[in-house]
Amino acid sequence: MANPTRAGVLRTIAGAATAPLGVPSWTREQGRPLSPYGSPSKYESAVVRRTVDRTPTLTAAWNVTPLQDLHGIITPNGLHFERNHGGVPDIDPAQHRLLIDGMVKRPLLFTMDDLRRYPTVSRIHFIECSGNSDSEWTKPTAKTVQFSHGLISCAEWTGIPVSMLLDEVGVDPAATWVLAEGADAAAMDRSIPIEKLRDDALLALAQNGEALRPSQGYPLRLLLPGYEGNMNIKWLRRLTFMRAPAQTKEETGYYTELMPNGKARQFNFVMEAKSVITFPSAGQQLSRPGYYQISGLAWSGNGRVRTVEVSADGGTTWRQAQLQEPVLPKCLTRFRCDWEWTGKPAVLQSRCTDETGYVQPTLAALNASRFGGGARSYYHMNAIQSWRVGDDGTVTNVHA
Amino acid sequence: MANPTRAGVLRTIAGAATAPLGVPSWTREQGRPLSPYGSPSKYESAVVRRTVDRTPTLTAAWNVTPLQDLHGIITPNGLHFERNHGGVPDIDPAQHRLLIDGMVKRPLLFTMDDLRRYPTVSRIHFIECSGNSDSEWTKPTAKTVQFSHGLISCAEWTGIPVSMLLDEVGVDPAATWVLAEGADAAAMDRSIPIEKLRDDALLALAQNGEALRPSQGYPLRLLLPGYEGNMNIKWLRRLTFMRAPAQTKEETGYYTELMPNGKARQFNFVMEAKSVITFPSAGQQLSRPGYYQISGLAWSGNGRVRTVEVSADGGTTWRQAQLQEPVLPKCLTRFRCDWEWTGKPAVLQSRCTDETGYVQPTLAALNASRFGGGARSYYHMNAIQSWRVGDDGTVTNVHA
Repeated sequence: MANPTRAGVLRTIAGAATAPLGVPSWTREQGRPLSPYGSPSKYESAVVRRTVDRTPTLTAAWNVTPLQDLHGIITPNGLHFERNHGGVPDIDPAQHRLLIDGMVKRPLLFTMDDLRRYPTVSRIHFIECSGNSDSEWTKPTAKTVQFSHGLISCAEWTGIPVSMLLDEVGVDPAATWVLAEGADAAAMDRSIPIEKLRDDALLALAQNGEALRPSQGYPLRLLLPGYEGNMNIKWLRRLTFMRAPAQTKEETGYYTELMPNGKARQFNFVMEAKSVITFPSAGQQLSRPGYYQISGLAWSGNGRVRTVEVSADGGTTWRQAQLQEPVLPKCLTRFRCDWEWTGKPAVLQSRCTDETGYVQPTLAALNASRFGGGARSYYHMNAIQSWRVGDDGTVTNVHA
Repeated sequence: MANPTRAGVLRTIAGAATAPLGVPSWTREQGRPLSPYGSPSKYESAVVRRTVDRTPTLTAAWNVTPLQDLHGIITPNGLHFERNHGGVPDIDPAQHRLLIDGMVKRPLLFTMDDLRRYPTVSRIHFIECSGNSDSEWTKPTAKTVQFSHGLISCAEWTGIPVSMLLDEVGVDPAATWVLAEGADAAAMDRSIPIEKLRDDALLALAQNGEALRPSQGYPLRLLLPGYEGNMNIKWLRRLTFMRAPAQTKEETGYYTELMPNGKARQFNFVMEAKSVITFPSAGQQLSRPGYYQISGLAWSGNGRVRTVEVSADGGTTWRQAQLQEPVLPKCLTRFRCDWEWTGKPAVLQSRCTDETGYVQPTLAALNASRFGGGARSYYHMNAIQSWRVGDDGTVTNVHA
C-alpha cells in the first residue's frame, strides 16, 4: 500500500475564496440561552444507538453505538451501547445495597454512602459485548460498522478497586471464584475467578465523570477490564465467594463457543485483539478520488495495542497506521492512515497486533478454529473486517 | 500532614451483614426498554450546570460545571461549562463556511464537508474561562466549588491541526497574528499569535467522541490548548492573517488585568498552574470522623502537572498526593490523598507544581502582584483555595 504525501493532495479539497463571507441568519439574531444539561445539535439527530430486529422486545435486547460517526476513543455516555436481559431498572441509590458474602470471615453490607467513602481510581477502558460482530461469521451481513462492530464502547470509569474490599471481608483462602449478581429483573449473574478481582476489577460508580447512566448499571457496576461485556455485572448487588463456578444459565446455556470437536468451551473471558476501520466503512460514500484519512479503532482485552496495519488491496500489502497517544491497556486506540483513492475498486482492511504479540486473525483462520467452520458460532468474533470501495465511491461490507 | 494507613480504618465503614438481601421492587418487575440516546438517572437531577445571578440575561452569561459531583478528568458533554456572549446559535453545518484570508497567498473557503476530508488528531485538554474563580480575590464568596472553580471542563477533542491549513493557504512571512471570528450574534473575535496556530491549535469537530455540542461551538471550534477559554473561538467562521493584533473589544475593554502600576496587561493568554480539592469542598458535610479520600483536580496551561501537595492544616504541613495516570499536557489531572479526619477543625488546601517548575501561588502572593491588592481583579485567578472542615463536619469556603 503506497504512502501518499499530503502536500498538494490536500490543497485540492477546499475552494478558492472569491467573495466576502455573507452574514448568516444565526449571526443576525440572539442565540439560545444557557441550559442546565446539554444535548447534541438537532442536525446530529441521526447519530443514535440503533437496535437490531432479532429480539421481540426492547427489554431483553441490545442496541449498537454509531462508530461511523464517532471520533477519538471516548464514547459519549448517551451513545454507549446497551445490552439488557430484563430491561433497565430505575434504582434508588438510597435503597441499593451491596452484600459481600459466602466464603469470607466478615460478610459485609454496603450502602452507597458507605461505598462513596472508599478510595477510588479512574481508568479508561472499553467494554465489548461477547456477541459483537456475530453477524459476520459466514456472510457479510451488516450494512454498516454500527451493526457489525457497534457492541463496543469506551469510557473513563471511576471506581473502588475490588481488591481493597477483599481485604476488608477476609476471603477464605479456599475460595477461588465469585458469583456476581445484578439487581435487574433478570438477576443477571456470572462466575468470576478471584484472580481477576485481585488484579484490576473495579466497583464502578462513574462513567466519563458523572454517575453511571441507568442502562450502564447505576448506581454500581462491576468492571472487569478486557473481559466480555456480560460479566461486567450492572446494578451489582452481591458478590458471593465460592470454591467453584456456579454454572449459571449465562455460562452454560449462553456465552460459550462450539469448538471443532463439537464441545462447548466455557469461561473464555478475554476479548482478544481486534480492529475495524470506521471511515471509510460500509454505507458511506466517497465523493471523488483523492486524499482520504482512513480512521478506525483497535483494542485488546490482554493489554495495549502494539501496532495496527492497514491494507487497501484486501490484505496483499500492508502499511503501519499511526496510533493516537496515549495508547492505554484494555482501551480503545484510535488509528489513522493517509490514503489516496485512485478511483479504482479497493478493499480496505485493518489488522491489530497487541503487546502480547497476538495478531488479529483472518476470517478463514478464525472459522477454522470453530465447529463447522463458524456456521454455528456467535461469540468472540474478532476476525479482520473488509470494506470494499467501488469505482463509484460506494463502500460495502464484503468477505475478502 | 500524617499519612494514615488504610487497613483498619476502612473496615469501620461498612455494616456487618446480619440478614439475607431482600428483593427490591426493581428486581420484581421488567425494567425500561432501550433508548436511542441516553440520559442520567432521575436521582442525579441535582447534578447540573448552574448560573450565577450577575448577568441580566442567559444569552450573555455563563454557567458552571458541578465539579463536586464529578469523578476522573472527563467532563460529560452535557455538563461542560457554557459561556456565551450572544447566545447559542443553531448552525446548519451544510450552510456553515470557514474563510481563511488576509495575508495569505491563496485565500480558501471551506465547507464542513471539505474540512471532514482533512487529517485529524485527538487530544484530551481542559478549557478554563479566564474569569474562573474571579469571586475569590478578596473574600471567600462562593458557597461551593461549582461556583468557585466550575468554569473549567475537560474533554477529548478531535480536530484538524491548524498548522496543516497554514501550509495550504501559504501564509505571508510578515503575518504574525490571526484574527479568529465566531458566527454567533456577538461575532466574538480575538487576536492570536501565529506561533500558537503552528504549535498545537486544532480546528475541533468533535468532543468526547461525538460532534461538538451547540454551546461548545458546533460545528467548528478553534481549540487553543492551555489558553484562556474565550480565545477558543466557538462557531468559527474566519481566520484572518495580520501584521499585528486587531485590538478587538474583547482584548481591550475585557480580558486584561490591572497590574500594580495601574496599567492593564493585555494578551496574557496561558492559564497557569492551579488546583482545587473537589472533595471535601464547601457545602459538603462529613458524617463522622474517620477515613476519607481527599480528591481534586490540578492543571496547567503550560504543560503537565508535576506534583500536587495537600495540606490539612492551612498550609503548615504538606503531603504529596497521588496523580492518576496518564498525566497529560494541558489536561486536567485527578489527584487523591488518604486522610483521617480526627473530628477537629481542619483547613484543606492543595498546591500544584507544573513541569516548568511553576508553583501555584498563595492568595496573598497573587493579590500582591495586582493593582490594589486584587480588589479590582477578575481574570487569571489561580491562587491556592482553602476549605475549612468544622468540628461538626460542615465544609466552608475560607481564606486562610
